[in-house]
Amino acid sequence: MDTTTFEIRTGGTFACADLTDRIAGWLGGRGDGLCNVFVPHATAGLALFETGAGTEHDVEKALAALLPRDDRWEHRHGSRGHGADHVLPLVVSPSLVLPVLGGRMALGTWQSVVLVDPNGDNPTRTVRLSFLPG
Amino acid sequence: MDTTTFEIRTGGTFACADLTDRIAGWLGGRGDGLCNVFVPHATAGLALFETGAGTEHDVEKALAALLPRDDRWEHRHGSRGHGADHVLPLVVSPSLVLPVLGGRMALGTWQSVVLVDPNGDNPTRTVRLSFLPG
Amino acid sequence: MDTTTFEIRTGGTFACADLTDRIAGWLGGRGDGLCNVFVPHATAGLALFETGAGTEHDVEKALAALLPRDDRWEHRHGSRGHGADHVLPLVVSPSLVLPVLGGRMALGTWQSVVLVDPNGDNPTRTVRLSFLPG
Repeated sequence: MDTTTFEIRTGGTFACADLTDRIAGWLGGRGDGLCNVFVPHATAGLALFETGAGTEHDVEKALAALLPRDDRWEHRHGSRGHGADHVLPLVVSPSLVLPVLGGRMALGTWQSVVLVDPNGDNPTRTVRLSFLPG
Repeated sequence: MDTTTFEIRTGGTFACADLTDRIAGWLGGRGDGLCNVFVPHATAGLALFETGAGTEHDVEKALAALLPRDDRWEHRHGSRGHGADHVLPLVVSPSLVLPVLGGRMALGTWQSVVLVDPNGDNPTRTVRLSFLPG
Repeated sequence: MDTTTFEIRTGGTFACADLTDRIAGWLGGRGDGLCNVFVPHATAGLALFETGAGTEHDVEKALAALLPRDDRWEHRHGSRGHGADHVLPLVVSPSLVLPVLGGRMALGTWQSVVLVDPNGDNPTRTVRLSFLPG
């Protein structure tokens, strides 16, 4: 298994960071196998969706409705409603497995690998890529 | 790694398509390893639940409540509320990993592998299976 | 691939059972690879979140709001609202993949592997661990 990490700046607000090109670059030249994308953070997740057509904003809106950033949460520190960020990984897992063929992710036309980070208190995130050849 | 794709007809309405038998057939005769099930679509996901006892309808109802098909979504094209379909993969991932022992998925008695497809505009879907022996 | 199962008592009420130490113990002494954690049950899931600071209760509260335990569900047996437990795996997958380096899970500081079991009718659960070296 080959593995690496990289840092990505998600800034001080809700962010959907498209990781697709970065992952594709690292996988280039490899053969077939499975690639695990993993975010070693308790307040971020990974998802596959279409970017650039409004879904980033829809994701933000959906999460605000599903996990409201208000005072209902027992886990409290940092910004108001931050407890919701700690529940995010329940719904949006920080671990994702992608099939790789000839060094390329076998994604659909409209799929991008996206880091979903609602937590403005952590402006920089780590992403781990692990490739298990088969 | 051995990999294949197949097409499945999900029709013009919300669909829960049970893939279990199809996957079991492809895995038969293999040994131990991990099987990745992957849907290369931006508006479908995969889940493990009990089929045949009403949960398919409950899943449809739950998604209608969690991600309402109304005009709130910025991503708009096709049918009304289709933007909700683009948020589906945030909650229901299109990638699933299953442990395989002696060519059989190590599923629980009541678990079936289900393609969840809320998008009536795409009546046919592709599923990729990848088996990494270990 | 090396694989094992163990039983865990989750009791007769909603439970978040921290599996991290148990998994770490089993992985100890291994090298690099991917570990699949899998729950062969139709009414439980796995998540990575911070334990010990209130998020367990927040997870219970969030699930009660997202999937209410009332009479809306078609799948009915056992306790009232049990149909919601059958929808849980749609949102909280019973399969999770973790990167392993030198026999240790590459988790973030605040991440724990948690079995989420809303179903008080099943007081004991099985967990399967599978390690695919790479």
